[in-house]
Amino acid sequence: MTRRTDQLKLGAFLANSGHHVAAWRHPRAQADASLDFDYFKQVAQTAERGRFDALFVADVVALWGHHLDALSRTARGEHFEPLTLMAALAAVTSRIGLIATATTSYNEPYHIARKFASLDYLSKGRAAWNLVTSVVSDEAWNFGREAHIDHAERYRRAEEFHDVVKGLWDSWEDDAFLRDKDSGQYFDPAKLHVLNHQGEYFSVRGPLNVARPPQGHPVLVQAGASDAGKALAARVAEVIFAMAETIPAAQAFYNDVKQRATALGRDPDGIKILPGITPFIGRTREEARELFEEFQSLVDPVLGLRLLADTLGEDIDLSAHDLDGPLPETPVGQRGSRRDKVLELARNEGLTIRQLYLRLAGGNPVIGTAEDIADTFDAWFQARACDGFNVFFPYLPGGIEVFVDEVVPLLQERGLLRREYEGATLRENLGLVRPANRFAGSAA
Amino acid sequence: MTRRTDQLKLGAFLANSGHHVAAWRHPRAQADASLDFDYFKQVAQTAERGRFDALFVADVVALWGHHLDALSRTARGEHFEPLTLMAALAAVTSRIGLIATATTSYNEPYHIARKFASLDYLSKGRAAWNLVTSVVSDEAWNFGREAHIDHAERYRRAEEFHDVVKGLWDSWEDDAFLRDKDSGQYFDPAKLHVLNHQGEYFSVRGPLNVARPPQGHPVLVQAGASDAGKALAARVAEVIFAMAETIPAAQAFYNDVKQRATALGRDPDGIKILPGITPFIGRTREEARELFEEFQSLVDPVLGLRLLADTLGEDIDLSAHDLDGPLPETPVGQRGSRRDKVLELARNEGLTIRQLYLRLAGGNPVIGTAEDIADTFDAWFQARACDGFNVFFPYLPGGIEVFVDEVVPLLQERGLLRREYEGATLRENLGLVRPANRFAGSAA
Repeated sequence: MTRRTDQLKLGAFLANSGHHVAAWRHPRAQADASLDFDYFKQVAQTAERGRFDALFVADVVALWGHHLDALSRTARGEHFEPLTLMAALAAVTSRIGLIATATTSYNEPYHIARKFASLDYLSKGRAAWNLVTSVVSDEAWNFGREAHIDHAERYRRAEEFHDVVKGLWDSWEDDAFLRDKDSGQYFDPAKLHVLNHQGEYFSVRGPLNVARPPQGHPVLVQAGASDAGKALAARVAEVIFAMAETIPAAQAFYNDVKQRATALGRDPDGIKILPGITPFIGRTREEARELFEEFQSLVDPVLGLRLLADTLGEDIDLSAHDLDGPLPETPVGQRGSRRDKVLELARNEGLTIRQLYLRLAGGNPVIGTAEDIADTFDAWFQARACDGFNVFFPYLPGGIEVFVDEVVPLLQERGLLRREYEGATLRENLGLVRPANRFAGSAA
Repeated sequence: MTRRTDQLKLGAFLANSGHHVAAWRHPRAQADASLDFDYFKQVAQTAERGRFDALFVADVVALWGHHLDALSRTARGEHFEPLTLMAALAAVTSRIGLIATATTSYNEPYHIARKFASLDYLSKGRAAWNLVTSVVSDEAWNFGREAHIDHAERYRRAEEFHDVVKGLWDSWEDDAFLRDKDSGQYFDPAKLHVLNHQGEYFSVRGPLNVARPPQGHPVLVQAGASDAGKALAARVAEVIFAMAETIPAAQAFYNDVKQRATALGRDPDGIKILPGITPFIGRTREEARELFEEFQSLVDPVLGLRLLADTLGEDIDLSAHDLDGPLPETPVGQRGSRRDKVLELARNEGLTIRQLYLRLAGGNPVIGTAEDIADTFDAWFQARACDGFNVFFPYLPGGIEVFVDEVVPLLQERGLLRREYEGATLRENLGLVRPANRFAGSAA
């Protein structure tokens, strides 16, 4: 197989203290990072030094986690609101993209169109919107609803929301603003377009009170894994965050989405698919493995049992069982694939309760030397299992420093990663086309 | 009368190209400032050099102005969204406060509580919320409504919205986050409080997913001039933006609000009242007057006639009249006070149509030398007509440079303005008490 001539696209996932659920307890992690802007600034500037395409921040519009005994053992109870955080980071970076998550379930499209247009100007063309739908009831309760919106309706709403936002971004043609001091004409009214959207969920007149964003449209990011999610992604996404544990699984997702997009008339290269990956890096493989085990040893059993209950369901009471003994006999095949997979894993490998929750806590990390990590990135990329990665750093800020100092030079030597940014905007760095204005040339 | 021992509080109004409606056309103003972050950064840093208490940005969540012929002659068709702009400015300033406007009419309290808490952390305690209600139908149309909410309902909604936001800010006690690496306890669940608000307009469970803000509550700013507006301000505002053309009018407003607050059991010194003021500064009075006339000469008649129509109503057609002749005979006393005042002004002073719209465009400026401006500030302050000013710079960025270089040193010499910031937070600089947490010490 000939090597690909394009390069990896890299996202840096911004997490409080790091991605590992017990990261904040490790000596190398900053425990009080969650609301410390200086920490995020340092991580962002390091990612830019490493020529990452973009920073990424996830979101839930609620304190998520009913079980305070477990939640109170994580750094996930407090976090910055994504758009304000990214706006502040725009001011202290110059080339890296800024991907903020915002839900379509409990927002208004006018606000979202406007805030991302504003971020695109603040950052001179580096904004991206990670479009999500809300799935936890805790969010519904903060917005006057008793339960979250059902799956199908949530995606219909998301699709209409998306269309309104893009329509609002086209309110002004790119050359609408003349600012001619002599004539006194600040803008050309013929280049302003009123959306007048009337739909199932939204009525939005427009126009937007922000000029057309530098990127035309801020980059559209999505992460849906369900069928409805993939259908929406194939239609609208330009970057997709994926989850896959093996190259074949990643290839299947990759081919599915790219074929769907092609069927809709899109250029498949206009979608960059980035699976999440968590590298634990050591000078030797043994050191990397020890580092991983250090993090695993910091997972409190209360938290570990909660991870198990969230996966297996509340009906299996493990509190009376020895953590270092086996799971009680549990019927398989009643609650869907994720639960069954975990139960099968425990049985097939003869795992104790502790070993099983640690498997869930540890996720699917890549553990090894910088060379090993670079090999893994290379293998997935060449196999067309991805177009790059969304990198989850197990601990921060140190974890990204090590990655940038040790893995990035190897990726650059192999021609897999840029040495300098190609363009000024995120869209240019990702190699994505700047969209035309739907209204350009038409009558107002 | 003995001189006051406290000092002026100063807000710097951030406007695209400047406050004068024709500012962008003047050679000293930057015409393409509206979406240029470097411009806002320069203005913000200059204001901080001048020891202003805070930056202030107004807002309308719509393209406001139905008459595109007039709107297209102003720089008001495009602007940054306030919270993203202020978040970015937080990263490039260190001491100045950041007052962002957000409407209670077309937002959700959870989002607003969260974004201002986030801004308060990003800025290390410098956030303030200018609470407004929406009055233009253009905003309603962007949020699925046919007309804006009526006055009384708007204020009831605003009051409930405010109460929910403050409740959410108290979700966590100040010492809830332990982050104890040894014990593994990140926060103390006993210091987390669920709001469970069920009201007329909102049902919001909470808790907020941001720790209690550094200021306890970001500073609350308000600008209501109606009776309902003043009632709300007296109950909740800590800074009030006022509009008054004379010292007696300003004193009347000042006394009214402070008496209302006292009657509600508040300390009247806990409310800082800042009228808007627009200084035109010259080396001589003649030069200042010429500068003012330069700006006035740049007001396009199309825009001027629109200002008149907005004030007098659409039923007076001036298009067939000579701009340099008198207003046509118009009955007084049918449309309320502002219209009548303007008609009386035209008749009493024998103004032409052009002179009248220029009077509206020019507002109520203070025109003179730096010494004159300082005298005016001093006189209003000593007369207890205000606690400071919200300064509108006629043109930017030059207008604030002149103010800081020439007026600020005079205010400092007179002991009217700080030479260094007193504290680290906006609340400390304004001399406002940090509020206690309503839940502290109670059961969860």
